[in-house]
Amino acid sequence: MTVQENISSLSIGMVLFQNLTQLDFTGPYEIFAKLPNTQLHLLAENLEPIRSERGLSFLPDTTFDECPALDMLFVPGGPGVNPKMEDKNFLDFLKIQGEKASYVTSVCTGSLLLAAAGLLQGYRATTHWLSLDLLAMFGVETVKERVVIDRNRITGAGVTSGIDFALVIAAELFGDKIAQEIQLGMEYNPQPPFQSGSPQTAPLDIIASVTAATQNRQEIRRQIVQRLLSQN
Amino acid sequence: MTVQENISSLSIGMVLFQNLTQLDFTGPYEIFAKLPNTQLHLLAENLEPIRSERGLSFLPDTTFDECPALDMLFVPGGPGVNPKMEDKNFLDFLKIQGEKASYVTSVCTGSLLLAAAGLLQGYRATTHWLSLDLLAMFGVETVKERVVIDRNRITGAGVTSGIDFALVIAAELFGDKIAQEIQLGMEYNPQPPFQSGSPQTAPLDIIASVTAATQNRQEIRRQIVQRLLSQN
Repeated sequence: MTVQENISSLSIGMVLFQNLTQLDFTGPYEIFAKLPNTQLHLLAENLEPIRSERGLSFLPDTTFDECPALDMLFVPGGPGVNPKMEDKNFLDFLKIQGEKASYVTSVCTGSLLLAAAGLLQGYRATTHWLSLDLLAMFGVETVKERVVIDRNRITGAGVTSGIDFALVIAAELFGDKIAQEIQLGMEYNPQPPFQSGSPQTAPLDIIASVTAATQNRQEIRRQIVQRLLSQN
Repeated sequence: MTVQENISSLSIGMVLFQNLTQLDFTGPYEIFAKLPNTQLHLLAENLEPIRSERGLSFLPDTTFDECPALDMLFVPGGPGVNPKMEDKNFLDFLKIQGEKASYVTSVCTGSLLLAAAGLLQGYRATTHWLSLDLLAMFGVETVKERVVIDRNRITGAGVTSGIDFALVIAAELFGDKIAQEIQLGMEYNPQPPFQSGSPQTAPLDIIASVTAATQNRQEIRRQIVQRLLSQN
């Protein structure tokens, strides 16, 4: 899938919305912004600051209305996914851009938005571990892997997977050397102090407390997905 | 060093400046923002948007003049470090806040700014691998480790080390359980697609190309450090 030889320029649209998880977006941004001949568009409904989950605010640079055709559509996740799954204008924008784009991609619960826009049905894809069952409700073949590629759909698991996800994309599109240079430049030689980064490795009490703390948001999310599916 | 028992609230000041490397700051932010009873201040000289290295812009929320006393001072790095090493007002702010803070911390070349402000002399500390020799010129005992703790100075290596760095801080201050919950919530189970994240593991041609691409900036940086040291 390496397109290094025949790609003259790459246009990536990163979709922003209120209450997103900022690292879902800023992890991949750090890598995408260093790809050669690549233009990033920070897309939002309007140019007002985007306030992320815990308050950090970013400035988008391109409105949905002014968005050019994209080679790659990218959607992050976060608590703000909940209202966006029922925002028709937002989903229409994803659908129109996603159907034209060469690559349709997401990190974390961004895949719920792609699925709500009808862009993941029949594809293998992943999402944050807490939302895998919700993604499956949309008719997506969910996979418990950190980065999943199925034809031109590329999805990452929760939050920090976006760094691995974007390095995989860098290698796919521009070759291993570019991806390795970016990895060395950002000194991505991770050494987590604990083995608690996945429900496959975390202690049971840690899984229980994280699940309990997010239960309310996840239950509301489940009701939204059920409502969406009952309307179709 | 765990202060979980006796800490009623923690105030962290994250110092922003033009042309910083955004992931140096957004990686730790994602973790710091989830600490209990913790207030983050996004500090800058004024409240104008901060444009990071590749264009992504953030909004600070507190000016240096209005900054309260901090429990922890945090400084990220990036190309913007070069002019800031010679910005007396900026360094004075770091020095005044750093001397009062319980913890003085940095990621990537933020440690060059701490050193330029006189806050790291005689301490063990680290920085981005390309700048270790420059940090040593300040009389800092440089260490090729991902996270270095020496008394109340805590420094991280390049860019993505900020995630490991902040999880280590979370564990030190609030205990392992809080740190592990945050790690699981952000699904930090890294799987880099290559082993090129460190000059100890990257292929020689990758090291050579990254070194060549940054040679000009590093040479200017060296001249700045030499100028600073000749003035003292």
